[in-house]
Amino acid sequence: MPVPAPSDLAFVPFVSVDHMMQLVHHIGIDDMMIGLAEYIESDFRRWESFDKTPRVASHSKEGVIELMPTSDGEVYGFKYVNGHPKNTKEGLQTVTAFGLLADVYTGYPVLLSEMTVLTALRTAATSAMVAKHLAPKGGRTMAMIGNGAQSEFQATAMRAVCGIDRLRLYDNDQQATKKTIRNLEDRGFHLTACSTAEEAIEGAQVITTCTADKQYATILSDNMVGAGVHINAIGGDCPGKTELAKGILQRSDVFVEYPPQTRIEGEIQQMPEDFAITEMWQVITGQAPGRTSADQITLFDGVGFAIEDHSALRYVRDQLEGTDLYQRLDMLADPDDPRDLFGMLLRAKGE
Amino acid sequence: MPVPAPSDLAFVPFVSVDHMMQLVHHIGIDDMMIGLAEYIESDFRRWESFDKTPRVASHSKEGVIELMPTSDGEVYGFKYVNGHPKNTKEGLQTVTAFGLLADVYTGYPVLLSEMTVLTALRTAATSAMVAKHLAPKGGRTMAMIGNGAQSEFQATAMRAVCGIDRLRLYDNDQQATKKTIRNLEDRGFHLTACSTAEEAIEGAQVITTCTADKQYATILSDNMVGAGVHINAIGGDCPGKTELAKGILQRSDVFVEYPPQTRIEGEIQQMPEDFAITEMWQVITGQAPGRTSADQITLFDGVGFAIEDHSALRYVRDQLEGTDLYQRLDMLADPDDPRDLFGMLLRAKGE
Repeated sequence: MPVPAPSDLAFVPFVSVDHMMQLVHHIGIDDMMIGLAEYIESDFRRWESFDKTPRVASHSKEGVIELMPTSDGEVYGFKYVNGHPKNTKEGLQTVTAFGLLADVYTGYPVLLSEMTVLTALRTAATSAMVAKHLAPKGGRTMAMIGNGAQSEFQATAMRAVCGIDRLRLYDNDQQATKKTIRNLEDRGFHLTACSTAEEAIEGAQVITTCTADKQYATILSDNMVGAGVHINAIGGDCPGKTELAKGILQRSDVFVEYPPQTRIEGEIQQMPEDFAITEMWQVITGQAPGRTSADQITLFDGVGFAIEDHSALRYVRDQLEGTDLYQRLDMLADPDDPRDLFGMLLRAKGE
Repeated sequence: MPVPAPSDLAFVPFVSVDHMMQLVHHIGIDDMMIGLAEYIESDFRRWESFDKTPRVASHSKEGVIELMPTSDGEVYGFKYVNGHPKNTKEGLQTVTAFGLLADVYTGYPVLLSEMTVLTALRTAATSAMVAKHLAPKGGRTMAMIGNGAQSEFQATAMRAVCGIDRLRLYDNDQQATKKTIRNLEDRGFHLTACSTAEEAIEGAQVITTCTADKQYATILSDNMVGAGVHINAIGGDCPGKTELAKGILQRSDVFVEYPPQTRIEGEIQQMPEDFAITEMWQVITGQAPGRTSADQITLFDGVGFAIEDHSALRYVRDQLEGTDLYQRLDMLADPDDPRDLFGMLLRAKGE
């Protein structure tokens, strides 16, 4: 007897790293940043329709492995992501990730995707979408403090979404800055390598901090930050890891994604439980003020939230249509008679 | 410039449904049940070395999607599983599942596998491993009440692990019983189709209840169950779904996997919070008594726990070696320089 082929229902589209990179070039990096920012913004507008739960973390001495689930009632999604700061020294990524979408109505998975590249893209798209709402209008200069794996993504999104095309780069490792300049030099930016963080923020309307050390660091001290800037603080994103002096937080209006998570993982873990913050979705829906004066310091304490991954996975799913940039994985058993799983197994022997 | 190939580190072995079924036949179903039962039993022996957490559930009107993570400090694992009772009517599986193992030290995934078939196997192997400890010695007859997708797996494991080879089958749908008999008739069992549950349990030393309806049902009423049997209660496995009359629970010694989960999902959800139970791992390690007399009714209130999935995935990983029963998925970005994710993306354009 021939072995029966799995039915169409048994297959889940899978986007590999290579396919994801091809998809980025197929769409264009700038257009993909704009598209992702639109999906994320529209999900912030319907923030209340999502199930929200803090990450489910498994901690070890070396790092953490997390599951980040959410659902909008129609589509369920989760991301697997690890954080292992010591990996870099061993030639591995600090963070790898993959994600899944499933149909809430049937529980069947409908997309599996790499998310190491996609998380880098959505993190930058989120920062840019927030900066569009909070940064001083017309600002074209960004200080980029920390020139690691996320830096070029941040720069690309900020230009595509906000028109920021002058970058002042600083990293305590000059090789990192050289790498960022090498990657961005033909991409239409005006680039300046700086030898201190102070020098980098001169004349910048947006300051992005994105360093990787897991420790209470002070990348920006209080006296460095003048009135009117927007701070995009990305690197303070897990317990014990912050980048900003408390004084800056006290002088700023602080905007966050999901307060229960940000109070544990973000810059504001340094502050008391009742430290005043504004939820970004309320700014976007007009329920809370964003930037209200030219002198105000706005600060986005970004840690990355499951809804942004949900947006990014749905964007990818929608863009895949009509391409061949995925494999079909035989991931779901689909017997003709759902009660006859054992019969399917017996018939697979092909006797 | 040629597009660089991903490095070996970027690949994750993936076991499809078809490969899983081939692996079962490569090992042999009986030997696989014995192997799985051994892995599960040895993990019950080191129960305290696992991180344990209740499932992370996302409920909807139609069903539930759950993530079940656990870690033994070296290997992290989780299972994605849905439960949609209405699916069967639409020609879909009530339950589909897949799982992942990752290296705790690096956070990198090391195995992705279908788990619809594997969960059916590990559920049966767990029941059989428990029955080996609790059922009356020398018993060869099992009543199987509920002849759905799990029934043949239960029968196969009970024979391979406990020597039970006489089955008395009952289902309120005669077609289900016919399907089970068709699948098992050439596999060395003595099979009897029964027209009532009462008839099925006549002369049985083990009673397995495994029905699918999500409701408070009474598959077994109190006066049906005589002294000395072992009840393997598998179908009561989520809130609102039970199979046994309270009176049976009161007359039995009840054994469970992980009490915080079983009190919510198992048969004992009908009983007060402080209803006495015994943890199965304590029986296996000799810290608590199992069967102590010939008249005693032992009852395994099985709901399925994450550690059993961890055991099953590790068993599969170990058996894959030397076979070609997996694909290599390009699931992890692995740039030469971990800080140069953007450079890897640019080079993927192949310009």
